[in-house]
Amino acid sequence: MKNSIGTSVILTLAGESHGEMICAVLDGLAPGIPVSEEAIAARLSLRRPSGATDTARREPDRFSIVSGVFQGCTTGAPVCILIPNENVRSADYERTRTLARPSHADYVARVRYGGFEDWRGGGHFSGRITAGIVAAGAIAAQALKRKGITVGTHILACAGVRDAAFDDLDPCVLQEQIEAVSAMDFPVLTDCRAGMEARILEAKADGDSVGGIVQTAVCGLPAGVGEPWFSSLEGVIANAVLSIGGIKGIEFGAGFGLAGMRGSEANDAFFVQDGEVRTRTNRNGGINGGISNGMPLIFNSVVKPTPSISKPQETIDLDSLEPATLQVAGRHDPAIVRRVCVVVSSLVAIVLCDQLSLRFGTDYLK
Amino acid sequence: MKNSIGTSVILTLAGESHGEMICAVLDGLAPGIPVSEEAIAARLSLRRPSGATDTARREPDRFSIVSGVFQGCTTGAPVCILIPNENVRSADYERTRTLARPSHADYVARVRYGGFEDWRGGGHFSGRITAGIVAAGAIAAQALKRKGITVGTHILACAGVRDAAFDDLDPCVLQEQIEAVSAMDFPVLTDCRAGMEARILEAKADGDSVGGIVQTAVCGLPAGVGEPWFSSLEGVIANAVLSIGGIKGIEFGAGFGLAGMRGSEANDAFFVQDGEVRTRTNRNGGINGGISNGMPLIFNSVVKPTPSISKPQETIDLDSLEPATLQVAGRHDPAIVRRVCVVVSSLVAIVLCDQLSLRFGTDYLK
Amino acid sequence: MKNSIGTSVILTLAGESHGEMICAVLDGLAPGIPVSEEAIAARLSLRRPSGATDTARREPDRFSIVSGVFQGCTTGAPVCILIPNENVRSADYERTRTLARPSHADYVARVRYGGFEDWRGGGHFSGRITAGIVAAGAIAAQALKRKGITVGTHILACAGVRDAAFDDLDPCVLQEQIEAVSAMDFPVLTDCRAGMEARILEAKADGDSVGGIVQTAVCGLPAGVGEPWFSSLEGVIANAVLSIGGIKGIEFGAGFGLAGMRGSEANDAFFVQDGEVRTRTNRNGGINGGISNGMPLIFNSVVKPTPSISKPQETIDLDSLEPATLQVAGRHDPAIVRRVCVVVSSLVAIVLCDQLSLRFGTDYLK
Amino acid sequence: MKNSIGTSVILTLAGESHGEMICAVLDGLAPGIPVSEEAIAARLSLRRPSGATDTARREPDRFSIVSGVFQGCTTGAPVCILIPNENVRSADYERTRTLARPSHADYVARVRYGGFEDWRGGGHFSGRITAGIVAAGAIAAQALKRKGITVGTHILACAGVRDAAFDDLDPCVLQEQIEAVSAMDFPVLTDCRAGMEARILEAKADGDSVGGIVQTAVCGLPAGVGEPWFSSLEGVIANAVLSIGGIKGIEFGAGFGLAGMRGSEANDAFFVQDGEVRTRTNRNGGINGGISNGMPLIFNSVVKPTPSISKPQETIDLDSLEPATLQVAGRHDPAIVRRVCVVVSSLVAIVLCDQLSLRFGTDYLK
Repeated sequence: MKNSIGTSVILTLAGESHGEMICAVLDGLAPGIPVSEEAIAARLSLRRPSGATDTARREPDRFSIVSGVFQGCTTGAPVCILIPNENVRSADYERTRTLARPSHADYVARVRYGGFEDWRGGGHFSGRITAGIVAAGAIAAQALKRKGITVGTHILACAGVRDAAFDDLDPCVLQEQIEAVSAMDFPVLTDCRAGMEARILEAKADGDSVGGIVQTAVCGLPAGVGEPWFSSLEGVIANAVLSIGGIKGIEFGAGFGLAGMRGSEANDAFFVQDGEVRTRTNRNGGINGGISNGMPLIFNSVVKPTPSISKPQETIDLDSLEPATLQVAGRHDPAIVRRVCVVVSSLVAIVLCDQLSLRFGTDYLK
Repeated sequence: MKNSIGTSVILTLAGESHGEMICAVLDGLAPGIPVSEEAIAARLSLRRPSGATDTARREPDRFSIVSGVFQGCTTGAPVCILIPNENVRSADYERTRTLARPSHADYVARVRYGGFEDWRGGGHFSGRITAGIVAAGAIAAQALKRKGITVGTHILACAGVRDAAFDDLDPCVLQEQIEAVSAMDFPVLTDCRAGMEARILEAKADGDSVGGIVQTAVCGLPAGVGEPWFSSLEGVIANAVLSIGGIKGIEFGAGFGLAGMRGSEANDAFFVQDGEVRTRTNRNGGINGGISNGMPLIFNSVVKPTPSISKPQETIDLDSLEPATLQVAGRHDPAIVRRVCVVVSSLVAIVLCDQLSLRFGTDYLK
Repeated sequence: MKNSIGTSVILTLAGESHGEMICAVLDGLAPGIPVSEEAIAARLSLRRPSGATDTARREPDRFSIVSGVFQGCTTGAPVCILIPNENVRSADYERTRTLARPSHADYVARVRYGGFEDWRGGGHFSGRITAGIVAAGAIAAQALKRKGITVGTHILACAGVRDAAFDDLDPCVLQEQIEAVSAMDFPVLTDCRAGMEARILEAKADGDSVGGIVQTAVCGLPAGVGEPWFSSLEGVIANAVLSIGGIKGIEFGAGFGLAGMRGSEANDAFFVQDGEVRTRTNRNGGINGGISNGMPLIFNSVVKPTPSISKPQETIDLDSLEPATLQVAGRHDPAIVRRVCVVVSSLVAIVLCDQLSLRFGTDYLK
Repeated sequence: MKNSIGTSVILTLAGESHGEMICAVLDGLAPGIPVSEEAIAARLSLRRPSGATDTARREPDRFSIVSGVFQGCTTGAPVCILIPNENVRSADYERTRTLARPSHADYVARVRYGGFEDWRGGGHFSGRITAGIVAAGAIAAQALKRKGITVGTHILACAGVRDAAFDDLDPCVLQEQIEAVSAMDFPVLTDCRAGMEARILEAKADGDSVGGIVQTAVCGLPAGVGEPWFSSLEGVIANAVLSIGGIKGIEFGAGFGLAGMRGSEANDAFFVQDGEVRTRTNRNGGINGGISNGMPLIFNSVVKPTPSISKPQETIDLDSLEPATLQVAGRHDPAIVRRVCVVVSSLVAIVLCDQLSLRFGTDYLK
């Protein structure tokens, strides 16, 4: 599949940055899930550029649900959500449109689509398409909440400034922390916002951009979800998350830190608490053998610095293959780390709805 | 899909650690690819435990191809490879079989399969199943070679000792380096074998185990392979690689290092060399927008320390849910980092055959 | 997958009969295919109710393409087509909405979706959704035409009146016949329209409905497309066509007639004509072993009589499970046989684009 | 997918007629299903050639289950079944191997696989591969039986002789009729065996072959299984059944007979009996809107006459493209209608396990 993800619950995306609208079709969700337009709007607002650290493109993200919802609930038929593009300035791209932006998809788009691609604002490769993920994910999150499952993502590191990690926290407070960050405009666990913003603005002032790491946690996921080979829970989540433009790596639990540990440090000892099997540590991020073990699912994703910077860059002209110098115009984010948090949470919510439906049937989330 | 991976070229795995045999079915490969049993045997020998740093279980890995190959070449029909299990000692597991090994799949298997799982030696979760990946991957690698595509993996770090990285090397020598490591018993780029082995044996002496990082590079992959959303080349590879037991994270190009860079450092400037589009650096690991850009594809995977250690560990009894202390018997690897290299390369070779067939048709590799 | 079909070229449908709009997303089509809105409109008009033999619901089928087309051609990104529902009269359904219409999907919808389904006008089960198939299929047909492949469907039988069969015709004239019927309002090969219409109107006058058989032919399809097991060309087409509401059977070539033949009659002798391999007869409908053999692909689909009739019918109330008598109000077709022709052709065009892309690569139709 | 079918329960087939063995991998079945080797052997014996009306090739069908079954039950891991080919006489094919057998797959195999195909005995296209379907289907049938679901197929017509239809029977006796035919060597509902056999032997004596129609019924399937579009129960079953070599058409319920009915005849009136919703007639074959309605699922499949006949036939030489006359040697069935019954039932059992697991979760059949 290409612009679709999932087996039992399936998200399909269409749209371009400067096209008429973004379309997200969320199919296979159980019937009877209440759909709150307010909740969708609230999540879209978390993705929306807002302050000085984001692009100046301001989209109202007016959306409409044109199918699959009836009398306030999902029907079980595909939910189609449309989000018009309203604040489009293609002229910014016109002048430099044959100059491949380094680390952006311009060159591969040319190779893959032979010049027929919609080059305006990154076309179908644009982060604008993630608005569809967020809108659909808001419904998926509502479905999960009915089963006591919460997904949240915060900025673990940005521009060299580090937040606390979820797993540093007392596990007892994890669920409320997840809920807290999932509603935050600038989701961090500790008092590091000002520091991060300062560093982002510094980069912006230099005509540059910064990257970071976002950390996602899921609470309430039952044990026994996932498959051993080729649909491991790690693999399925990684496939989803690595589709998001700019995300170049993912690690579960202690992740790359495991390389320096010994087995006796890395192993999570089992014990029983209040009748439930738990582990003392959670170096495995809630997954063993590709299957959820009932502990919080935790993973980190790395976000590369936004490739669109205004500093002059060496590149080539896609038509002539001649060397060229590019100075990107247009409105760009000096950092997308903040905005990507809700995108990751939304996509993971959809993936988990799919996994739960596969495991427990299509009515499980009803 | 569960124990199958791929769309046009598909690998299906069956078998258990102490079952009768491992079965790998590789379907959809182009007809006319020469199949060398020697090449398969050679790759299986790279995965096979051999020295003091590996498990004492020694499998001859006698295999037979029972379909899909005729007169020395693939026919286009599914290739079925059988690898009998010969050196099985289930008694080692009998005594402690209800004690969930920490960080292993015993507990999730119990939840997922309700006690019907084959618990001997990890059953279907065992690394033994990767013999099927390696045998099938040997054929995939032969297919890729016809198009000038080479895949290789080396140990980037193990037990605190670090090898050079592929991308530290002069790009001109990359292809031969890939070919060199892909034939090595202990694949490293520099003189670090003795150091790594010493640290592994130290851990073994302590009844403990170590992890590491393996780095994979692919040379010769044409630009334009992959899809923007949900079948990004990063996502597809990550889904495959994270199925391998013990791998808990993956990063492409500069990976998690991108979090600390600015765009001006992270962006890969385009230039033309001998008529081919290239980039000055390769922080993106050969992938932009989910699609190959013609540069070497490079990624790192983290391998956790082998969970089976002989030190006493806190755990629970799966039947009674009572606390227990486990001292793992059986024959185990103090490190699987060395052996995992050829597994990752093999799986990636299969994934790339699939991606190339999807992009350029089922006869492309013929 | 649910409301999606295809592997390399994928159609996804959303929408309900009385919802806001029908949405069709056609993904994976090669870039560079010219998209003519006139051609789409023309095909939609073939599906649209028009005369006394159709429902009185008249939809203008104004559509808009909101993504995936740029400067008149496909870009390679998903094409999203929206078709608003404009002529909706849900009140017709309100009075009898808890009475399960016999042979319609009302009862299974209740079981499957638990009462949350949009019951108005058949909701997501409505034939109205096929407008999305036809719009997307118009683009697929344009793509096929570039390769000299034509798909056409005519009414082979309706209400007891029979047309000639494609295979009765001189093979030399087949292509032009296919092209002719694919543009016809009431597609028949011989002079049988008046007879069919008379019988349909008779049934309508009786408050009843009729069924029929439609025959589809494809000309120009290259040999070697399809797979032996589980993706046979027959199986893939059948899966698509049997999704269309009211189609209850499909037969390829001589179909059920083969049951009464001997091998010597049923076998299609090979010969070479102008350097091309052909068969003397075409009892296999252009497919051997699940793979196209280069002869015209021919199959028949049976369409059951429209279940919505105005005669009183025995049924049950879905809420109380009490017996009830239903007299269907609303606007219904006494026969959908005419309108289904372009739907079958459209869906088959999409399926063939998918099969060709899988076989020859994603740029084949470019 | 190619040689695999299913989403949650997946069958993968490998093997050739004259290769070493047939391999069937059945993945995703719930754990805890008792596996009886006797039941598998019994079903294989129904497929096995036995009397004068079948091919003279006699295969013992010794099989072994090499994974996925532990202590007599499925484990949840993939079940791999191997069936060696023992009675192979490739020399029969050697002499005429470049002559394309009319209506067989020889020509398309050459086009598709470019001469690399295993041509011996039809290779991967051979009916021999269905032994794998039958073995795997025996386990699926055991799983279904636990939920009170029975699948059976009988010969509705062969060589012009007709059996009674399932739906002619009193519905009260349907289940036992299904069970009866599913154990029969020559499955018919009435006393028509002698007549059919006589006509088959007549054809054989003429160096010819005959076709027929088989009818399948499923009892006990719950309502609410299937999807409206593109995974309709009709479509999913048709895709499976039309993969079986020689099956060229399928019809559900009254099938092609619906073309001549009016809605008032074709509609199945609902009523309630003993608290269960039922229909007076079953013209829809147990499926409305692509979803099971709780009535017996009934469909007919047409089997073309075996293409391998000993009468001289016009054909071409695949190497030279010169005209040729073929007189097929080797051991062939004058009719496969009898043997195909258990193949259809087995494949449908697997498809229904998949559909039920998708709908109600992976543990439903446990």
